[in-house]
Amino acid sequence: MTRIDPEFVAAAEAAADVAGQVIRPLFRSALLVEAKGDASPVTEADRGAELAMRELLRRRFPDHGLWGEEYGPERAEAEWLWVLDPIDGTRAFVTGRPLFGTLIGLLHRGRPVLGLIDQPGIGERWIGVAGEPTRFRSPLGGAARCRPCPAVGHAELSCTSPDMFEPADRPGFERLRAAARRVTWGGDCYAYGLLALGLVDVVAESTMKPWDWAALVPVVEGAGGRVTGWDGRPLTLESDGRVLAVGDPVLLPEAVGLLGG
Amino acid sequence: MTRIDPEFVAAAEAAADVAGQVIRPLFRSALLVEAKGDASPVTEADRGAELAMRELLRRRFPDHGLWGEEYGPERAEAEWLWVLDPIDGTRAFVTGRPLFGTLIGLLHRGRPVLGLIDQPGIGERWIGVAGEPTRFRSPLGGAARCRPCPAVGHAELSCTSPDMFEPADRPGFERLRAAARRVTWGGDCYAYGLLALGLVDVVAESTMKPWDWAALVPVVEGAGGRVTGWDGRPLTLESDGRVLAVGDPVLLPEAVGLLGG
Repeated sequence: MTRIDPEFVAAAEAAADVAGQVIRPLFRSALLVEAKGDASPVTEADRGAELAMRELLRRRFPDHGLWGEEYGPERAEAEWLWVLDPIDGTRAFVTGRPLFGTLIGLLHRGRPVLGLIDQPGIGERWIGVAGEPTRFRSPLGGAARCRPCPAVGHAELSCTSPDMFEPADRPGFERLRAAARRVTWGGDCYAYGLLALGLVDVVAESTMKPWDWAALVPVVEGAGGRVTGWDGRPLTLESDGRVLAVGDPVLLPEAVGLLGG
Repeated sequence: MTRIDPEFVAAAEAAADVAGQVIRPLFRSALLVEAKGDASPVTEADRGAELAMRELLRRRFPDHGLWGEEYGPERAEAEWLWVLDPIDGTRAFVTGRPLFGTLIGLLHRGRPVLGLIDQPGIGERWIGVAGEPTRFRSPLGGAARCRPCPAVGHAELSCTSPDMFEPADRPGFERLRAAARRVTWGGDCYAYGLLALGLVDVVAESTMKPWDWAALVPVVEGAGGRVTGWDGRPLTLESDGRVLAVGDPVLLPEAVGLLGG
């Protein structure tokens, strides 16, 4: 197991702090309310937050790579690669729901070893480090520990939107949905955070980019869950964007079977 | 216009406070996480909060009626009738999303004249009084004023779930959804609060009970919007549970046409 330098964790926290400072004043801003579309304010928050994070990480770790949703890759071949999504859940942001999140992941030779989910409005933060228990801070309470769930028929399923799937992925998702106890829509990265708190049992989504999932893996796995592709295999930079998270690893074969049919 | 006694507003605020004191410790509680189903903890929060609100309101206004989701009607024929939903959005509560709300409405001879939406986790509160501008308090920011929206084609639509509609209501909702700029799922009462903040333009739902909508009417209308049935008429205790809210009243005829089609 690669040891994760505590300075990397401190840097991830500092990066989330600077991102939050950019994002908070723009959330529910008059700018947002009065905009004709949503492009300008959410883009301003997205870009401003990513630039602030990149600058901080570049200064602390000049030889690390950086890859963000807004500004693309920089030294992507480096041993350590930071993967950044300043606002995951732009639709939540644009409609004023405080369930979007800032995602900061660190890959070591392509494997996610550090992840941070930050909700800057409420002030909630999940920190996952490979091989360590996930930490969680929130004014709303909750503890980072996935709950047992014996079978998909007992599972609380979560998914951002029924409209997010490619046509080829719909039948698999529909089988999982039909088998699950029930589904709750909405959530983006927040749903994975809730899974890590033992409040959701399964999340299945598709069309996910590395900056959407890199931070989630250490958070969920450090709380006892698993994050894989729809085939049950670990996610890599070559994965196809279909992501499955389960709180109880016993669910994995059944969920993979339903998704893959 | 019936004058609303400031003591009624103060009582609604006090009722929301006592409900929040019951609800907050149970949100994301170990009890919830460990429960096999969701019946017990959400029922405990729902019932405890409703009992606390009823006791407070009964003591302050012994001649007023009370009608809550959990404990039914009491003096429902009274001139002033309090309509209570301690946890609107039980699915959000159960999955740990802080978007559920406590709803407190006051009807005067069947007409909603006072409404309060409270989010006890985050600490957000919308207060609507007939004939007055809606007030809003939140650590996350936002101002209670609906935004202009010229046509449904520009509208941000919100709805709790695609699964909430009776079969007969689906075609109307699907026409509205197809015409809207886009749809965001999830939210329950919170979506109406966001509409009152000018962040959502249309909400259309069905199978709504009086305790689901009574509080929303003064909140939305005091922010410049409208809440009606799918036929565009004011909601009454005899309404069929189909609710339409628009931020810009200019949207009403077009939305009604699409829903009723």
